[in-house]
Amino acid sequence: MAAPTIARERVHDTAKLRAIDVDIHPQITDWGAVAPFVPEGLRHRFTRRGGPPMARNGFKVVGDPFGDVPKPPTSDATQPHPAADPAWIKEHYLDAHGVDLAILTTNLTSLGVQPNADMAAAIARGVNDWLLETWVRPFDCFRGSILVAPQDPAQAVAEIDRLADNPGMVQVLMGSASESPLGRRQYHSIYEACARHNLPLALHLGGEGAGMSPPSTAVGHPSTYFEWYGAIPQNYMAHIVSMVTEGVFEKFPTLRVVLCEGGIFWLPHLMWRFDKNWKAQRSETPWVKEPPSAYILRHFSSTTYPLEASGAAELGQVLEMVEAERTLMFSSNYPNWLYGDPFAMVADIPEAIRRRVLVANALALYGDRLLD
Amino acid sequence: MAAPTIARERVHDTAKLRAIDVDIHPQITDWGAVAPFVPEGLRHRFTRRGGPPMARNGFKVVGDPFGDVPKPPTSDATQPHPAADPAWIKEHYLDAHGVDLAILTTNLTSLGVQPNADMAAAIARGVNDWLLETWVRPFDCFRGSILVAPQDPAQAVAEIDRLADNPGMVQVLMGSASESPLGRRQYHSIYEACARHNLPLALHLGGEGAGMSPPSTAVGHPSTYFEWYGAIPQNYMAHIVSMVTEGVFEKFPTLRVVLCEGGIFWLPHLMWRFDKNWKAQRSETPWVKEPPSAYILRHFSSTTYPLEASGAAELGQVLEMVEAERTLMFSSNYPNWLYGDPFAMVADIPEAIRRRVLVANALALYGDRLLD
Repeated sequence: MAAPTIARERVHDTAKLRAIDVDIHPQITDWGAVAPFVPEGLRHRFTRRGGPPMARNGFKVVGDPFGDVPKPPTSDATQPHPAADPAWIKEHYLDAHGVDLAILTTNLTSLGVQPNADMAAAIARGVNDWLLETWVRPFDCFRGSILVAPQDPAQAVAEIDRLADNPGMVQVLMGSASESPLGRRQYHSIYEACARHNLPLALHLGGEGAGMSPPSTAVGHPSTYFEWYGAIPQNYMAHIVSMVTEGVFEKFPTLRVVLCEGGIFWLPHLMWRFDKNWKAQRSETPWVKEPPSAYILRHFSSTTYPLEASGAAELGQVLEMVEAERTLMFSSNYPNWLYGDPFAMVADIPEAIRRRVLVANALALYGDRLLD
Repeated sequence: MAAPTIARERVHDTAKLRAIDVDIHPQITDWGAVAPFVPEGLRHRFTRRGGPPMARNGFKVVGDPFGDVPKPPTSDATQPHPAADPAWIKEHYLDAHGVDLAILTTNLTSLGVQPNADMAAAIARGVNDWLLETWVRPFDCFRGSILVAPQDPAQAVAEIDRLADNPGMVQVLMGSASESPLGRRQYHSIYEACARHNLPLALHLGGEGAGMSPPSTAVGHPSTYFEWYGAIPQNYMAHIVSMVTEGVFEKFPTLRVVLCEGGIFWLPHLMWRFDKNWKAQRSETPWVKEPPSAYILRHFSSTTYPLEASGAAELGQVLEMVEAERTLMFSSNYPNWLYGDPFAMVADIPEAIRRRVLVANALALYGDRLLD
C-alpha cells in the first residue's frame, strides 16, 4: 500500500465545529488489506476467506441492521457496505449531516475474548496500522482509536506506547467483553499506559458471551439477540462497580473511560444503590475514599446512541442525574441505525446543554488530539 | 507466639530413609493462631468464627473422610482432629508407619479462586508463617510448601521470594482450582520465580467449581461429591495441555510440577492423543518443539494416593507408560484415607521401582531441601 500523501494540519476551528461523532464503525471488507500490517508468520491467517479467527457469541440482528443510514447504490458492486469507503462516508454521512469529526471504533468487539492472545495482539496491531493508513491519515475528518487486546497486558501496553504519539489517534479502545471484571489487577498496566499518555479508554459492547467471556448476563446465556442486547448494560454496570471498588481511579486519577452504545438510563439507579452500600460496607476497601457516584461522574462518559427514551418526559431528569452537560457525547453508531435516526435521538436534548453534547464534551475529553 | 527453640540440622541419611510422604494435610483448627502472622488490618477477618472467608464449591464427602487413619482418643477434647497436632502425628502416623519425612500441603485448595486477591495473599502469607513456626521449624520430619494465591501474581512472586531460602520450605503450592488454564501468561511470573529458586510447583485439587473457578467439568457443574471427584482429573488434563501448548516448559526449562491426589491412569491416553495432534497441528504453536509427551514426562510428577486400581493386572503397564520409576512419588493424603490405606495402595508396585517411588524420586526432585 502506498504511503499517505495528504498532509495533516490543524484545520478545525473549535468555534465552527457543528458536531463530533464519537462512535462510528468502519467496516473491514477485505482482510487482505490488513494482512500487510501484521507479522509475516501470521499473515496467512488474515488472508484466508473471512479473515482471522474471531470469537462469536452467536447473536445477530434479525433483518436490516442499517435502518435509514445512507447506503451506496447497490449497483456498485465494489462498495456494497455503507461503512466500507471513507471518502464515500465523508461525503454521504459526515458532510451531508454537518458532522465535522468522527472517531472510529472499528467493530472487533470480541477481540478481548479471543483465546489466542498473540493472535489477538496481532489483529489489534494490524487493524490499527490499516486504520491509520487508509482512514485517519488521508482524511482530516477521521480520528482513530488504538485497539488493544487485554489478554496479554504487556502487548497491549506496547501497542499503546507504539501509537500514542501518532497524530490522529485519540483514545485506547477495548471491547467491554472481557475475561474478568475490568477493575481486576491484571488490567492495571493498561490503565497506567492510558493515563501516562493522557488517552481516554473507550469500551465498546458486542463480544459479550463469546469466546473467553463469561455468559453475557449475571444469570447465564440469553437466547436471542433481543434478550442479549436488552441485558447488555449489566456488563457496563459490573465493570463500573469493579473499577470503582478495586480502586482504579485512586490509582490512576486522570484516567477517563467512555462507555459506547450503552445508554444512560440505568446509571442513576447504580449510583444511588452503590453510594448507599458504600456508607455501610467500605471498610473492606478503604481506598474507595469518595462515594462511588463521585468517581463515576468524574471518570465515565457515555454516548447518545441509542438513548433509551429520547422523547420521554423524564429525559431532562435523567440528563441531570448523570450530569450530561459534562458526561454525554453525541454518537451515531454509524452504520448501525436500526434503533432509529441518531439526530432524531438527540432532538429533545435541552438547548442549554445541546452544544456540550454535540461538540464541547468531546473537545474537553479528547483535547488537542481531536484538532491536530 | 514464642520463637522456635529447636535447632535444625541435617539428621537424615538418605540411605536410611524408609519412606517420604509428599502430600499430608495439616489441619488449621484455630485460625486465631494464624492471625498474628497476617497484616494487622486484616486480623479481624481471621479471628472471626470459622476463619477468613474462603470460597466453597458445596461438595463434601458423605460420611467419615478419614477411613482407618490413626485417630486421637475422642475423650481428648482439645485434639479432636487427626491432623491438628504435629507431635501426635509424628508419633502415631510417621513413626508408627516408618515414614521419615512428610511434605505439608495444608488444605486451602480454593485459595486461588478466592475473589479478594489481597485477602488471598494475606491468607497465604499467614498460613506459611504459621506452618513454619508450628510444624516445620520444631520438627525435623516435616517440610513445608510455600502456599501462594495466583490471582495477584506480583504478590505470589513476592511471597516466593520472601520464603524461598527458608530452611524447610521445599516447594511452591497452588490449588489446581484457578480462574484460567495454568499455561496462560498471567501465571508465568510465578513460574519464573519457581525456576529461579529451583522450587518445584505442587498443584493440589479441591477448590474446583468454587469462587472464581469455572465449573469443575468441561460440560458444567456436577451434582454430587461422587460426580465431582470422579471428574477431577479433567482439570489436571486441561492444565497439562495448557502449560505445554503455551510453551511454559520452553520458557522455564527447569520448572517441575507435582500433581497431587490426581492418580495416573488417565495420563497415557492424554499423551497418546496429544502427541498425535501435535504432528498435525503444531504450526500454530511453533515453540512446542517436542512431542507433548516429552514435556509431560520430563516436567510432571504424580503422587500415589489415590492410585486408581492398585491391584489391577494392568498396573505394571500403566506404571511403565507414565515412567513411574522417575515420576511417581509416595503420598498418604493424611488424614483423608477414605479411599483406603495408603500403604496397601502401593503394595503391588514392583520391587524394581519400589524404593524410587517411596524415597528416591522425591529426593531427586526436591534435593537437599528435603535433607537440610
